Amino acid sequence: MTQQDNTTSLCGQHFIGGQWIGKADGFTSFNPVENTPLPWLFAEAAEQEVNQAVNAAQSAFSAYRQTTAMQKSEFLDEIAKQIMADVDSIIAIAHQETGLPFARLQGETARTCNQLKMFASYLRAPTDARYADKADPDRMPLPKADSRLGYLPLGAVAVFGASNFPLAFSTAGGDTASALAAGCPVVVKGHPAHPATSELVTKAIARAINACNMPTGVFNLVQASQATGAIALVRHPDIKAVGFTGSLKVGRILADICATRPLPIPFYGELGSINPQFILPTLMVESAESLARSQVLSMMMGHGQFCTSPGLIVVLKDAALKRYLASFSDEMAAQDAAPMLTPGIAATYQKMTQALMAIKGVNVLAQGKAATASHHTRPLALTVSVSDYLANQALQTEVFGPFAILVQCETIEEIDYLVHMLDGQLTASIHGLEKDLKDYSQLIDNLSYKVGRLIFNQMPTGVEVCYSMNHGGPYPASTDVRSTSVGIEAMKRFVRPICYQNMPLSQLPRDLRPENPQLMTF
Amino acid sequence: MTQQDNTTSLCGQHFIGGQWIGKADGFTSFNPVENTPLPWLFAEAAEQEVNQAVNAAQSAFSAYRQTTAMQKSEFLDEIAKQIMADVDSIIAIAHQETGLPFARLQGETARTCNQLKMFASYLRAPTDARYADKADPDRMPLPKADSRLGYLPLGAVAVFGASNFPLAFSTAGGDTASALAAGCPVVVKGHPAHPATSELVTKAIARAINACNMPTGVFNLVQASQATGAIALVRHPDIKAVGFTGSLKVGRILADICATRPLPIPFYGELGSINPQFILPTLMVESAESLARSQVLSMMMGHGQFCTSPGLIVVLKDAALKRYLASFSDEMAAQDAAPMLTPGIAATYQKMTQALMAIKGVNVLAQGKAATASHHTRPLALTVSVSDYLANQALQTEVFGPFAILVQCETIEEIDYLVHMLDGQLTASIHGLEKDLKDYSQLIDNLSYKVGRLIFNQMPTGVEVCYSMNHGGPYPASTDVRSTSVGIEAMKRFVRPICYQNMPLSQLPRDLRPENPQLMTF
Repeated sequence: MTQQDNTTSLCGQHFIGGQWIGKADGFTSFNPVENTPLPWLFAEAAEQEVNQAVNAAQSAFSAYRQTTAMQKSEFLDEIAKQIMADVDSIIAIAHQETGLPFARLQGETARTCNQLKMFASYLRAPTDARYADKADPDRMPLPKADSRLGYLPLGAVAVFGASNFPLAFSTAGGDTASALAAGCPVVVKGHPAHPATSELVTKAIARAINACNMPTGVFNLVQASQATGAIALVRHPDIKAVGFTGSLKVGRILADICATRPLPIPFYGELGSINPQFILPTLMVESAESLARSQVLSMMMGHGQFCTSPGLIVVLKDAALKRYLASFSDEMAAQDAAPMLTPGIAATYQKMTQALMAIKGVNVLAQGKAATASHHTRPLALTVSVSDYLANQALQTEVFGPFAILVQCETIEEIDYLVHMLDGQLTASIHGLEKDLKDYSQLIDNLSYKVGRLIFNQMPTGVEVCYSMNHGGPYPASTDVRSTSVGIEAMKRFVRPICYQNMPLSQLPRDLRPENPQLMTF
Repeated sequence: MTQQDNTTSLCGQHFIGGQWIGKADGFTSFNPVENTPLPWLFAEAAEQEVNQAVNAAQSAFSAYRQTTAMQKSEFLDEIAKQIMADVDSIIAIAHQETGLPFARLQGETARTCNQLKMFASYLRAPTDARYADKADPDRMPLPKADSRLGYLPLGAVAVFGASNFPLAFSTAGGDTASALAAGCPVVVKGHPAHPATSELVTKAIARAINACNMPTGVFNLVQASQATGAIALVRHPDIKAVGFTGSLKVGRILADICATRPLPIPFYGELGSINPQFILPTLMVESAESLARSQVLSMMMGHGQFCTSPGLIVVLKDAALKRYLASFSDEMAAQDAAPMLTPGIAATYQKMTQALMAIKGVNVLAQGKAATASHHTRPLALTVSVSDYLANQALQTEVFGPFAILVQCETIEEIDYLVHMLDGQLTASIHGLEKDLKDYSQLIDNLSYKVGRLIFNQMPTGVEVCYSMNHGGPYPASTDVRSTSVGIEAMKRFVRPICYQNMPLSQLPRDLRPENPQLMTF
């Protein structure tokens, strides 16, 4: 085995307190397209390395929390710049480790940098109101004190990289960007499916730390493929919050650990969703064919490995449905089988889809081209009645991959009942004309209480990086419905309020002084 | 026993879905001044009554969440009006059940109404920014959708009344007011120490529900003195958040239940604090005597039964300390022994203070007048070195009542270390002149990370009802450092974000339409 390839050099170590440390003798990543292991070895973090990383972050906290908003803004911009300075190597490595196409990885890099720049831009010109209440020494029966509401960073934050977005939801992804913007040092546990990508992105962050003279330890990476490191990280008393994107199973285990620690901490887990699609009848008559095609293309994005992949399509059994189903089948038949992000994800897809096809009342609606290799997975759509769908919890569980279930309802009431029974979702889409939206207004209201993002006449795949985005939703879509992992509000996950009472002007944080245009005084 | 007295009539039942139901054959409350049980019997809620109450709240949710902000504003104002319409009976009953003086209860009633009116006022003129991102259909490589970030109420909220504030933190207190303002129906579990007060306040709310034509079930009261009802309430799948003010022990049990439910929900527990006071040396020289007197008077507020009662005083062992200690002892000697809110609280105070006095290195600094009845408690202040203080966790635990510990430090470094070792607190006060604040700037920064409210040259007792208040803090002061139970931000505990993508203008919630002056478009 070698620690080099022809595009770049990798050390395979952890990045802790500004140093690359540890012995690169642990695990390797895997090329899912070639179906072969990659040649680089990575260190495996045990409790000791995790403790070192958290200690480094905690040591950096006191200095980092005192940097100005402008300094943090420059730091985030510099990380984006340093990622772009090495973009070719990063994308080449990420392609080897994930099999994701170059165009997709280029888009994801741009998105990652946009996230960093959005928080940087916010820090230069914050948009949130700050509250101050004027003193009133003459008030009866008691004088009123001057009080002002500020925000403090929580402390060191643990971030878990996600397998399906090696850049945007990993090392320098949204969780890291929003934690750094909030003033919190970060310890990333890199996802074991793309450790080389994590290392290259960490090197970009390390250059930004140096360029901006940020405290050593403000960012740390531990590489780990086993649960030991992950559990030690969320149990560490100096970790004050956790950002996670991944499976319900792992997310819930970590969430429970965080909630039941001696000092409980917030756990922000984005755990996925089946993103139901509702096609309303008037639009179905008008656009059955184009709706079917768009639906298949959305479902096939990243070979179905988006957390916003549409996995449930709800339609009325009416005359237009036949046209929709015909187009849907045609479009599906043209889709290729392809490798998944990891062999484990591919195996799970095979197993889950086999099991679902064996359930009573479930029929195959459409399939993609047959797989030409055992590690490729074949796109699949099933169909079922609403009663059979609701009778079996397995059908309501997310299948990560190019898969959807179409549920045929007899009446509006059946659709209403289905919505009532739905689990929490990241998104839902309503496809309808004006008449539909009027006829189904109660359904729309009910559906809004099940989702984090309610979409009209568009597909759910693609999460815009913008101020007003919400990427979260009722459990199990996320573990904390009050929070988002994308959008400007993601920063708020990592701060908390503090009231300063009768604080001398000279001591007040800048955003609470009279010169802040966002300060509202009561 | 009778269900009547000469001031008012009590039914002793639960208030569920607009009806008074249940059999008033459960428990009685207690007059702590007379040290005798009160004559009224109250129903004891078991799982069945709790389920009925939650079902009533859940049934009201769909209608209540669709009321306008203006309608909710009028409803909150009407509750305040109806409380004032029966203020004499409410205060008379609360005095019998808690022993709190009339003046204090009058102040607390005013405060309770002010809380309701503050949220009402916010709803008429919201101050929070709303974010919208404009569509850009021509953007490359992908068009950008219109998106807007709104907020939805979480659903039915459970509120636990507190023993020490029978009005402001109970039936129509801050948790209920902020949940109703957020659009959430409420189920209150009344505190068993003041069920008659809860009933009268509930009757005021019931009149407001009728006057404003609010949905039946928007507010419900269950009376309970046993744990069964409380546990059934927080476990109910239709309860979506919990507001609680009370002890660390009970709070943590309920918090753990909420976190580990099949569908976890936020638990907002305000669990108390010792509210450390730091007296810095230059001010000590100037004002030793007046500081000592203010400190004792703050500690004696409500006979020490405020969650913001100053239970720890940190001073430097310098020449001026002698003057402070002398005044402190004089002021303490003038303080009366008095009954507590309940016999249980009095017994716990006796037991805890006895145990603390037996600890090595602990000395009695000052005492109030001796008790003239066995259910009265005597004010007490102990003194100890910093090393003995930190060596014994019992000394760092809140003693609910007229009690404080004075810790004498040799150096600034000892104070720094004490701050480093402190648990999370609701508040801390820094008493110092400009020179002190400069000399101790690192201490002030460190202390801010331990508290929810940082106070300069004022006492911690008294939580102002105003926009910028924060009443919470790092664990164990509260179970969720991101939240406050007082101040305008208290409402945010009961809402969650939702992104509306490409939603037709006609469907958009009012606060996301272009005419909202708080809408910021990017």
